[in-house]
Amino acid sequence: MAYEFKIVRRVEFSETDMAGIVHYSNFFKYMETAEHSFFRSLGFSIVARNIEPPVGWPRVHAECDYKQPLRFEDEVEVQLLVSEKRSKALSYIFRFRKLNAEPPILVAHGKLTVVCVTHHERGKMTACNIPKEIADRIQVAPAELIGG
Amino acid sequence: MAYEFKIVRRVEFSETDMAGIVHYSNFFKYMETAEHSFFRSLGFSIVARNIEPPVGWPRVHAECDYKQPLRFEDEVEVQLLVSEKRSKALSYIFRFRKLNAEPPILVAHGKLTVVCVTHHERGKMTACNIPKEIADRIQVAPAELIGG
Amino acid sequence: MAYEFKIVRRVEFSETDMAGIVHYSNFFKYMETAEHSFFRSLGFSIVARNIEPPVGWPRVHAECDYKQPLRFEDEVEVQLLVSEKRSKALSYIFRFRKLNAEPPILVAHGKLTVVCVTHHERGKMTACNIPKEIADRIQVAPAELIGG
Amino acid sequence: MAYEFKIVRRVEFSETDMAGIVHYSNFFKYMETAEHSFFRSLGFSIVARNIEPPVGWPRVHAECDYKQPLRFEDEVEVQLLVSEKRSKALSYIFRFRKLNAEPPILVAHGKLTVVCVTHHERGKMTACNIPKEIADRIQVAPAELIGG
Repeated sequence: MAYEFKIVRRVEFSETDMAGIVHYSNFFKYMETAEHSFFRSLGFSIVARNIEPPVGWPRVHAECDYKQPLRFEDEVEVQLLVSEKRSKALSYIFRFRKLNAEPPILVAHGKLTVVCVTHHERGKMTACNIPKEIADRIQVAPAELIGG
Repeated sequence: MAYEFKIVRRVEFSETDMAGIVHYSNFFKYMETAEHSFFRSLGFSIVARNIEPPVGWPRVHAECDYKQPLRFEDEVEVQLLVSEKRSKALSYIFRFRKLNAEPPILVAHGKLTVVCVTHHERGKMTACNIPKEIADRIQVAPAELIGG
Repeated sequence: MAYEFKIVRRVEFSETDMAGIVHYSNFFKYMETAEHSFFRSLGFSIVARNIEPPVGWPRVHAECDYKQPLRFEDEVEVQLLVSEKRSKALSYIFRFRKLNAEPPILVAHGKLTVVCVTHHERGKMTACNIPKEIADRIQVAPAELIGG
Repeated sequence: MAYEFKIVRRVEFSETDMAGIVHYSNFFKYMETAEHSFFRSLGFSIVARNIEPPVGWPRVHAECDYKQPLRFEDEVEVQLLVSEKRSKALSYIFRFRKLNAEPPILVAHGKLTVVCVTHHERGKMTACNIPKEIADRIQVAPAELIGG
């Protein structure tokens, strides 16, 4: 059972904007990369080729609080914690830390809620239970980790 | 005094992902485009070339709730409403409506809080009062518009 | 029979990078937007929902020459010209002009070659003839327009 | 003296489009990431904080030939080779190989020409000689590597 995952990435030039900092929309890409890496660490792909029937994970809520900017070539750690687990949905919180600072700086924190769906004809999606083999591998993080 | 602005855009291919829908991070780009168009409609640029001293508007909070997917070539209206006005910060809410549906569908709604800053050496930023000529042009939208 | 199309767009903040100019990869997004608008102008979608069997248009070659930078809020006209038409492929050239200059400035020019394909199982694609109803609507631009 | 560099990255969900493959514009982002990593491997940043006067490297030409698609979670190696070195410009060629195939598949190859510039007031740029400390570290790759 897993409730945490961390990735580290270096800010790329194409992720910055004319203000000289990472464009705020990219924090949501970073969150998703951490989420998908978390799934791979459990032996699954978010694009569930090895789950039958195939499920998808559209986002229903996303948010981010920005405390400090990130700049080109900064090293950022994205920590994912499972904050809620329901039959058809998962919520994650994320903490972004700039590692090339002494000590590392919390630059942002975010939240993501995703729903498990099956795909129908014409692109229609319906919420469904999280497949047991996935649900069995994921648990909510201890309150003291999620906490303040 | 203005409190509302609307833009319409057509979903581009490069904004979709392999799930066949607009990638969730792009809703934050759409919000920003509406915000910047709102500023232009008031006679300003968000990159305040015509304000002295120059100010910037980094985001401190962003969120979005997704109700329905957007797909390639969908026409989406982004409605911006000023929801809060403080001496150094503005908050906006956004409603995303898919226009090529009868009737139009609310596909998402979001929120953005931005802070007015001046830039110092080495890229440092400090919060500052919103320049009077901008503040004088912006007001909070009526509660019944924001509400519900 | 059509061989030309023009779109105009305003540079968005999220398209700039820390050098204060439009990131070079975005010119390829602009080209594609012009291409897809050209198709819509002919009554088709590049995602051929109304063609049987459905075809796709993967890119096999793309290039761009950059002459001048584009900046935030610049108005850029993207001119598409059909430069080659083969049974299974189309080539376009593009000229990017900054309109908010007097006279307008040619800031970049590019080229795109796309191949018509049908999709098979497991995502495999095979080149196929351009559907007649599409091919009948497209012709190569006069040499003097493409030229020099 | 260096003339080659390789990076490996895993395709992210946000880099795919509704065709289920990496959007063609992202290959240009991958090239740039390889270029910037190459510079770091030489002890420099492409954003030359440690060079006086500071120089920039705008792109003047970019191209890519696409042979095979890349998909979500594919592992792609980007090989950079210095193909030309002039007093004020560098050209690179790139080979993209999908590593999660047996044997690895060449999926694309590209080319980039960048010019060394100094920045003036109002964002104006002028071509300048590549700083000696950088030029001294870079050489053109052997012809047999650049080859056919």
